[in-house]
Amino acid sequence: MRGIVALLSDFGLQDVYVGVMKATIAQINPQIVVIDLTHDIPPQNIAAGRFCLLNAYPYLPSETVCVAVVDPGVGSDRRGVAVQVGDRYFVVPDNGLLSGILQQEEAIAAVQLDNAQYWRTESPSSTFHGRDIFAPAGAHLANGVPLEAVGTAIDPRSLVRLALPPVEYVGEEIRGCVQYIDRFGNLMSNIPASAVAGKSWSVKWQGGNIASGFTYSDRPVGELIALVGSHGWVEVAVNGGNACDLLGWDYGFPLSVIG
Amino acid sequence: MRGIVALLSDFGLQDVYVGVMKATIAQINPQIVVIDLTHDIPPQNIAAGRFCLLNAYPYLPSETVCVAVVDPGVGSDRRGVAVQVGDRYFVVPDNGLLSGILQQEEAIAAVQLDNAQYWRTESPSSTFHGRDIFAPAGAHLANGVPLEAVGTAIDPRSLVRLALPPVEYVGEEIRGCVQYIDRFGNLMSNIPASAVAGKSWSVKWQGGNIASGFTYSDRPVGELIALVGSHGWVEVAVNGGNACDLLGWDYGFPLSVIG
Amino acid sequence: MRGIVALLSDFGLQDVYVGVMKATIAQINPQIVVIDLTHDIPPQNIAAGRFCLLNAYPYLPSETVCVAVVDPGVGSDRRGVAVQVGDRYFVVPDNGLLSGILQQEEAIAAVQLDNAQYWRTESPSSTFHGRDIFAPAGAHLANGVPLEAVGTAIDPRSLVRLALPPVEYVGEEIRGCVQYIDRFGNLMSNIPASAVAGKSWSVKWQGGNIASGFTYSDRPVGELIALVGSHGWVEVAVNGGNACDLLGWDYGFPLSVIG
Repeated sequence: MRGIVALLSDFGLQDVYVGVMKATIAQINPQIVVIDLTHDIPPQNIAAGRFCLLNAYPYLPSETVCVAVVDPGVGSDRRGVAVQVGDRYFVVPDNGLLSGILQQEEAIAAVQLDNAQYWRTESPSSTFHGRDIFAPAGAHLANGVPLEAVGTAIDPRSLVRLALPPVEYVGEEIRGCVQYIDRFGNLMSNIPASAVAGKSWSVKWQGGNIASGFTYSDRPVGELIALVGSHGWVEVAVNGGNACDLLGWDYGFPLSVIG
Repeated sequence: MRGIVALLSDFGLQDVYVGVMKATIAQINPQIVVIDLTHDIPPQNIAAGRFCLLNAYPYLPSETVCVAVVDPGVGSDRRGVAVQVGDRYFVVPDNGLLSGILQQEEAIAAVQLDNAQYWRTESPSSTFHGRDIFAPAGAHLANGVPLEAVGTAIDPRSLVRLALPPVEYVGEEIRGCVQYIDRFGNLMSNIPASAVAGKSWSVKWQGGNIASGFTYSDRPVGELIALVGSHGWVEVAVNGGNACDLLGWDYGFPLSVIG
Repeated sequence: MRGIVALLSDFGLQDVYVGVMKATIAQINPQIVVIDLTHDIPPQNIAAGRFCLLNAYPYLPSETVCVAVVDPGVGSDRRGVAVQVGDRYFVVPDNGLLSGILQQEEAIAAVQLDNAQYWRTESPSSTFHGRDIFAPAGAHLANGVPLEAVGTAIDPRSLVRLALPPVEYVGEEIRGCVQYIDRFGNLMSNIPASAVAGKSWSVKWQGGNIASGFTYSDRPVGELIALVGSHGWVEVAVNGGNACDLLGWDYGFPLSVIG
């Protein structure tokens, strides 16, 4: 029995959108356990949603149904889909949100959410599929409805993939970029931990080098450090401070790892 | 058995006020399912609270007890009340928060929350009735305590109503105003969907006309659209953008629908 | 059976850190009731975390396990600990977060979290003990694992205490300072309610005097009032307004109570 729904969206907590999605889930089954991953994805930023989903999914319990809605194309002909990856399920607009996960693990099965029996209403709003389609479909899956019941099977290879600038290996240099900035101002690159495992390394950028360490407090307060962050990416941080404010880097800012 | 409490407030999530209300509910019964509608109503803005409550309530499961606290008059002689509307219950300060809902549906019964047996303490704080009166009264209702037990019956017609500028029908023109601005910068008017049903229409304002469409993506990215939003109000939005930033409109800004 | 975990942190809700902690708890037992106290403690501000924890803990149900993570020293040799105070448990970095509570009530027992069997992994991240150590240890305690199982007993008197500037009694004057500013701009001092009980008093500062009252609405809208706030501290507020914006006071700002 699947009984957990995890939610991720760009709806924010200022309006009642998220509350209404949860009320919709509770109407179907108030015993479903709801876990908020975050609702503060920058509005309509599929890439940030993709990154957060990728980093959260290893921690989701087996059989969790993750409903993720960052959906600039709502009401257009983009598909709504439910996808099984390992023993977890994702209910999402098919716009690349899942592409981080799909790069790491093949989907087992996917359906297009075209069975209106599992929608909240047969006349869904054209602007809020989170409430009318994704949340109810997710709640029914969490209730034990099989994937193939909530829609028509589609080829998982047809799911939209979002291309990120790839990491480049140029001699001893590994070139990547900032792919996410968190609340603490930590700058997360797209260079994975595996690229620096077992060697001595530092981060190079146009303004100089940042030596690597193991944890924030390996540096005095206020000083820069490069390290492998908790999500498993090379990251630049300041002990007790905000690296984003200090360096002024933004999403996509180029950096390299050198040996 | 009623077992769901929905919460709405202007307490924000920065302080522990909301957490303390939830702890108070869990002290009464940890099995109660708590749904956060929002806690980011602008501080002491009863009108915004009224709008959010009105839009969320159709989605609340049967028997839900909704505890809503936007309460600039806390500690004064404004009443605390519990009100039954249809098969749901509202536990609120009697200051107009419920008036959107009461405009659409008559209350079945109402009581003043004067039975201290269902408060957290017989000496409630004069500044935090959310914790000491509303949350515990709501939790007891969710536990199955009957409405008439938590206080003295009052005439539902005596509940405070908050007047909004009404929508005016002038010839072919329907005149309203902005009543809510959401996180995406979508501008929601007080003109209901029913006013534009089945006809071709646009929004007129002092700066021009905005043609109506069905969904955001009916326009190129960055362009204005008028549409019926998911809550059922005429709304002005920008595909992939922020209409509030683009137009500079604020709460109360006048606009019309023309045929 | 302990089945409630309360969470407090400075992780914010923008990233998936909190969601991942909750997923980790649900992996251990999805039936655990999770109560968010707040996740918006200013980053790495142990003093603010200490204040919020102190004010929330009287409302936590018996047997609640409170996992609180404001942890600038993560990855250093600061200890992770679980502490029993009365019939509640706290799982925290040993950095002073608990010192407000420990000033009011002696700890019954404490352990250092060195039993990796109750961590999420034997190789915890050096930057996210919330996910890898504190949340899982807390979930296991909530599941009924005894305190002494999750780590090696330590002397509760060895727990780190954070010194605040003490309240000074100088003749008829009680001198303190602002120790917390909430979302409404209410300015909370470190002078307890007991210091003003049963007497007529006002707040004195370099710019003048602020008369005391019972509740916000004892003053016209927009006017200053000194009162005992809901947490039990002398507080300066503005009826319907923001005292912090009006006065420009910050954390640590000196004020006195005079008779």
